[in-house]
Amino acid sequence: MKLGDGVEAAIHCAATLASVDGNSTMPGAALAECFGLSPSYLLKHLNQLTAARILDSVPGPAGGYRLARAAEQITLLDIVLAVEGREPAFRCGEIRQRGPVKIDASAYVKPCGINVAMLKAERAYRAALAEVKLSDIVADFMNDADPRTVAASCAFVERHQRSQRVQPSSNQPGKA
Amino acid sequence: MKLGDGVEAAIHCAATLASVDGNSTMPGAALAECFGLSPSYLLKHLNQLTAARILDSVPGPAGGYRLARAAEQITLLDIVLAVEGREPAFRCGEIRQRGPVKIDASAYVKPCGINVAMLKAERAYRAALAEVKLSDIVADFMNDADPRTVAASCAFVERHQRSQRVQPSSNQPGKA
Repeated sequence: MKLGDGVEAAIHCAATLASVDGNSTMPGAALAECFGLSPSYLLKHLNQLTAARILDSVPGPAGGYRLARAAEQITLLDIVLAVEGREPAFRCGEIRQRGPVKIDASAYVKPCGINVAMLKAERAYRAALAEVKLSDIVADFMNDADPRTVAASCAFVERHQRSQRVQPSSNQPGKA
Repeated sequence: MKLGDGVEAAIHCAATLASVDGNSTMPGAALAECFGLSPSYLLKHLNQLTAARILDSVPGPAGGYRLARAAEQITLLDIVLAVEGREPAFRCGEIRQRGPVKIDASAYVKPCGINVAMLKAERAYRAALAEVKLSDIVADFMNDADPRTVAASCAFVERHQRSQRVQPSSNQPGKA
């Protein structure tokens, strides 16, 4: 079992965007630079986060990305599912019905117990991811990381964020 | 995130082997037939289970596979790790150290908080898998599955198991 590299990139980018001022944005190229990633590689994952309404993608000369909602309202589970998809990791192929032991379909109304047990474990995983808010990740970084990395990270955000003249979102008038 | 198909095959095979009599074995070809799988495909996963000491592979004309220990002493976690490997699904690439924000190595002694949170969730997943014994899976099947599939499965095992003339294992003399 392996999570794609995109999960690490996506969480770091979302945590970075949690630090921009107000409704400012940060360009994808700056986020890629921040973590030594290729902009085209990162774009795929920024698009996934945007499609999942975790990020807003703002077009135009001062455009870029910003969080679509408060960091307190984004969990690690939201980000993992946005990048990896919502399907469970264990995908039952119903092999119990494939061999000569198979009888008619009425015998398989109850789900396979192996599938039930595997999905139960996956619910525990998802519940643990859902307990961690993006704001927790940011707060832990601010409190626990080496002060030099915190200062360097804040300076990078300060240098690359782009303030907006317009309201942040048409469905949230006046909240900027 | 996706688990390989081998996990489903491996758990079904181990559960089937939990039903053979005493120290009897079942050939890999019969296990493959039981679940409509290619014998060469299944061999890879039977080898993984054998390498992890979940199965014994018995050579010779009456050879085949059997559980290397009691079904009460095998968990779903044992099987998943045997097939998928023991590495965590989330593999931190330390991208926090890749970009221009990077400072000297002394600033990264503490692990990245994102890695810590992801691994904590994975521990919850593994703990849930470790709670389920192979014997639970078998007992649930015997108690809850359609009686026709239970009967068909038992008849298949009865037909394909191979009794042994020798002791089951050189380090367990007299336990057969």
